[in-house]
Amino acid sequence: MAVYLHDIPLDQAQARLREALEEAGLGGVLAEEYIPLDERAVGRVLSRAVWARISSPHYHASAMDGFALRSADTREAMPTAPVSLLLGSQAQYVDTGDPLPDWADAVVPIEQVEALDSADQPAADPRKPQAIRLRAGLPPWAHVRPMGEDIVATQLVLPAGHTVRPVDLGAAAASGHTHLWAARKPRAAVLPSGTELIPVGQDVRRGDIIEFNSIVLAGQVNTWGGEAVRFPITPDDFELLCARVQQAADENDLVLLNAGSSAGSEDFSARVVERLGELLVHGVAVRPGHPVILGMLRRSAGAAQPERRVPVVGVPGYPVSAALTGEIFVEPLLSRWLGRGAFQPIEVEAALTRKVTSPAGDDDFMRVVVGRVGTRLLAAPLSRGAGVITSLVRADGIAVLPRGVQGLEAGSNVRVRLYRAPEELERTVFAIGSHDLTLDLLAQHLAERGRRLVSANVGSQGGLVALRRGEAHLAGSHLLDPDSGEYNLRYLGQYLAGREVRLVAWVNREQGLLVPKGNPKGVQGLADLAREDMRFINRQRGAGTRVLLDYHLQRLGIRAEQVQGYEQEEYTHLAVAAAVASGRADCGLGVTAAAQALELDFIPLFHERYDLVIPEEYAQNELLKPVFDLMQDAAFRREVSAMPGYDVSVMGRVIHLGSIEPAERA
Amino acid sequence: MAVYLHDIPLDQAQARLREALEEAGLGGVLAEEYIPLDERAVGRVLSRAVWARISSPHYHASAMDGFALRSADTREAMPTAPVSLLLGSQAQYVDTGDPLPDWADAVVPIEQVEALDSADQPAADPRKPQAIRLRAGLPPWAHVRPMGEDIVATQLVLPAGHTVRPVDLGAAAASGHTHLWAARKPRAAVLPSGTELIPVGQDVRRGDIIEFNSIVLAGQVNTWGGEAVRFPITPDDFELLCARVQQAADENDLVLLNAGSSAGSEDFSARVVERLGELLVHGVAVRPGHPVILGMLRRSAGAAQPERRVPVVGVPGYPVSAALTGEIFVEPLLSRWLGRGAFQPIEVEAALTRKVTSPAGDDDFMRVVVGRVGTRLLAAPLSRGAGVITSLVRADGIAVLPRGVQGLEAGSNVRVRLYRAPEELERTVFAIGSHDLTLDLLAQHLAERGRRLVSANVGSQGGLVALRRGEAHLAGSHLLDPDSGEYNLRYLGQYLAGREVRLVAWVNREQGLLVPKGNPKGVQGLADLAREDMRFINRQRGAGTRVLLDYHLQRLGIRAEQVQGYEQEEYTHLAVAAAVASGRADCGLGVTAAAQALELDFIPLFHERYDLVIPEEYAQNELLKPVFDLMQDAAFRREVSAMPGYDVSVMGRVIHLGSIEPAERA
Repeated sequence: MAVYLHDIPLDQAQARLREALEEAGLGGVLAEEYIPLDERAVGRVLSRAVWARISSPHYHASAMDGFALRSADTREAMPTAPVSLLLGSQAQYVDTGDPLPDWADAVVPIEQVEALDSADQPAADPRKPQAIRLRAGLPPWAHVRPMGEDIVATQLVLPAGHTVRPVDLGAAAASGHTHLWAARKPRAAVLPSGTELIPVGQDVRRGDIIEFNSIVLAGQVNTWGGEAVRFPITPDDFELLCARVQQAADENDLVLLNAGSSAGSEDFSARVVERLGELLVHGVAVRPGHPVILGMLRRSAGAAQPERRVPVVGVPGYPVSAALTGEIFVEPLLSRWLGRGAFQPIEVEAALTRKVTSPAGDDDFMRVVVGRVGTRLLAAPLSRGAGVITSLVRADGIAVLPRGVQGLEAGSNVRVRLYRAPEELERTVFAIGSHDLTLDLLAQHLAERGRRLVSANVGSQGGLVALRRGEAHLAGSHLLDPDSGEYNLRYLGQYLAGREVRLVAWVNREQGLLVPKGNPKGVQGLADLAREDMRFINRQRGAGTRVLLDYHLQRLGIRAEQVQGYEQEEYTHLAVAAAVASGRADCGLGVTAAAQALELDFIPLFHERYDLVIPEEYAQNELLKPVFDLMQDAAFRREVSAMPGYDVSVMGRVIHLGSIEPAERA
Repeated sequence: MAVYLHDIPLDQAQARLREALEEAGLGGVLAEEYIPLDERAVGRVLSRAVWARISSPHYHASAMDGFALRSADTREAMPTAPVSLLLGSQAQYVDTGDPLPDWADAVVPIEQVEALDSADQPAADPRKPQAIRLRAGLPPWAHVRPMGEDIVATQLVLPAGHTVRPVDLGAAAASGHTHLWAARKPRAAVLPSGTELIPVGQDVRRGDIIEFNSIVLAGQVNTWGGEAVRFPITPDDFELLCARVQQAADENDLVLLNAGSSAGSEDFSARVVERLGELLVHGVAVRPGHPVILGMLRRSAGAAQPERRVPVVGVPGYPVSAALTGEIFVEPLLSRWLGRGAFQPIEVEAALTRKVTSPAGDDDFMRVVVGRVGTRLLAAPLSRGAGVITSLVRADGIAVLPRGVQGLEAGSNVRVRLYRAPEELERTVFAIGSHDLTLDLLAQHLAERGRRLVSANVGSQGGLVALRRGEAHLAGSHLLDPDSGEYNLRYLGQYLAGREVRLVAWVNREQGLLVPKGNPKGVQGLADLAREDMRFINRQRGAGTRVLLDYHLQRLGIRAEQVQGYEQEEYTHLAVAAAVASGRADCGLGVTAAAQALELDFIPLFHERYDLVIPEEYAQNELLKPVFDLMQDAAFRREVSAMPGYDVSVMGRVIHLGSIEPAERA
């Protein structure tokens, strides 16, 4: 069974493609075109430098509304000894921008003269007087924009390779251009293939995969200055696929063939490339994204430019792999064809919030969220799964763990290639801790107030640890102290003793058991978890909900080993609900809203308070101000109340403010 | 004579517009539309949050090509004690992405099993064996992407106000969306007006002004997410202008009326706004850009939504003022209508390279070039003229000198709102010193090599001063030592004693007198400068060409007072040539290439060497490597040689390397 032909390192794969392109005469700007100079030229890349054809201004121009004159005639003018000039022979009215008469070498602004019709008679029309009177002399070229002040003919206005901005169009027009030489937009065909795929908009059934990689790839191509052409989905039919790929190659500069790039039973891409051209690379040692194919296709004899070779990228099917393949292979290719020089990402150094492992043989493209907490820039790794497209949506950047690196400890510095301006990271609120569904609502409202909420769900205790390490601005927490019945305070003493902390109540919420609609197994309470026919889905260690469960199991005398699925952990209420909804488990412990979201039945068991723990240094910071504002915002409180099982009467109440006393382990 | 109605501070002007918009119900998102989820949605701003409709995956999916099975069946499998599972009842082949059968809870990858047709017979088709043999157990949910791994139904996928990127489309599609709610693109009419204007492409005659502000403004509108509609040029005809503006208001969300916003004889804009609606502001205390008009127009009775008010911005005619008016007033308005939150520029702190003055009453928007020299970030002010659009083309950012500040000393820190990513500034080569036409060619070639050459023409001596102050990476210099006949070395001793410097020859070039075609005044040499009928145009103090002139005038016994125009200074060879070409002067001293560029006659007088002075710390820096590479580059040398009067035989020769000895003033 063929696995990948051969995984080769990324730089080798890139070099092979580069060489093949150069051999095929496709190593530089693909073609140029002479485009009209108008607003549609914005974003185009200049294939030739713009040199000034004419000067700007192209004549000596008045810089003011006033009167053109000979400066020599005004030399004697003094406040007490004015000089009068006759209109016509000695002075002439000019508007701003008007050319200076040949005989003039200066302009006096209209507000600096007395306009006269006779010796002491103010002019009826101040722009058409008989004479003007000045009480100060003018140096030569006063209030004149001399020819070439802005641009002198023949000078460089814009270099080749420059991406046109609106103001550039002004400078090019001012220097006498009516058109610009720009690189032609490379045309890229995007072909999705796979029998299991359905297009966006079609009804989704079990086993169907919604095809969106072609939309993402087409969006990337267009964003990077190309012109994408999306083909319809081709089912897994080798001959049909060959025909479509040939058509794509005949009509386009580049072919992106999505999925089928692996070595599975219906992975035809490599064979298609071999049939229609040359297979250069099958397998690149990057993660995610392994099964990348690079090749060069021939055009049909009947196609335009039949001798032209057309590069093809076999793009892996997993959405994160697909998008990253675009960034790694397609963007540099388009940049080269546009002559703009490859995109140079902005990089920052940031400290990892947790330990990561990485396969030693691969360049590992890890998606991270980046934010500043205090003085430190932190990188929190997102899901590593190639299928988790939300990891790219949420990512602030990519940290590449190079081949040879097998892992990094928490706190290690990594270089992050940013997707956002570094300044945007300064508006990021890092919430690490317990998961609650109202955090999504908070994120939406914060976005409207210029803040980005990034929440990592590590459980209540994990959040307190993150605060202690200085890795979060705030933590959601609902840790019950069984002795006192109080929430969180004792745990604060355990994790944050000596720190100045504000503990603010957020919501009261209901916890209970989530079971499938109709409660088919007749679950009534926690005692049912010990039943032999019951598969439970648990929350991770350190989660407040887990603490709650363990406390009550202990009270009921149920041991963990008696609960089937106790070791199956999820990190959020919604994930627990999803596990129940999909039949993976028979029940789980979670909040009402999660049950309702996935249309499950809910057996209410407890009420609990969920708080926000905020170190005082951040509580007083401008960054978090919108969080506090929202706690008082009627509309926001209304929206939270509308979620099932939530009560906002406590929201914003300060439970504790000030230094934290040490406490015993609860 | 009415000057501006009343210049008010910028924040007041903005507040007046904001209030008027809110009164008219135009303070928020203008309208929304339900757009198809495809690549054309990239760049659109979401008017509603995207919440997941379905989970992704929406079923338990195999993460590998392999066999679905019950993990419990594999519990006993060991390397020495394999377990066999029968296809059909105990195992089922699945491709990556296929749904797991209901009875299965794990997948074993195909490469981890032995596929058998009988007890010891490998399967003919490894995907359709009779049985599979495993030598290791699998935990539950191994190699399975459980339902909701990426997205759980109901969770927040994208917040409202978010600008759509390609990957966002993938996440929205994966979560069950086929369309997105996006803010409708605001339509902005751009109306150029003025009898002196001609459109791009028409033959240019003296007094004509090429109309390009409408192109710049339309480009800005489109870049900022609006949809610009450019109107043809309207001549200065009040009634016609009223009709056109009314039409624009009837059909659009915003009207940008360019020029005529001042108070000159044909400045109709304010009157047009008063006739068709309400004039809110006439004159804003910003520089450049003063005569800004803000108002609200009424629609005609017959128009769509006749009760709608339409804001109008009267945009000043000077190109820099026009573009900045776009940034200051139009961008925030479009952002508000799109619901995206105003653009937050990236700001850096940089030290001014020279003293600047500023009118106390205005917010002064000063264009600056920003670059890093050594450890310091420097801001070099560009031309302040409102007509100098190249100042915006060349600008890396804007430093606002707020009202009340009348000027700043060289070295003062200013905050710069950047137009570029701060990282791009690190690729900027600062060349301050003598002007030479080959620097444009160098700039073009450096651009192809990922460097941006920023050159400030302050003359040879000015360049050495800049190097001494640590404000440049290199300086062009051609300072003749009359005693030795050598170039530059003595001046280095004067300005840079004790510094490690590399002095590298760049070109030999020809200097001479530039005179109009045909040499109408019969100029033969420098002696003619003393003639009464001769108007000279000079270079600025500290320029090498000025040093050369002064030396030779002294030898000829000609005093400065005898030379008419001696005090008229220009900063570049091309500017001198332009002054001669335009008739402002009868002759000037400059290089051959400048004469040829503007088709002047040239009287050759001297040959001189033009060097690059480079502190050793920068000479060894990666930043300048392309400069040294180019000196050896055959194609580049050929291009320089092709310019008239240039000889590259010396290019790259190191004249001096190492510490500079102090020297007496030359």
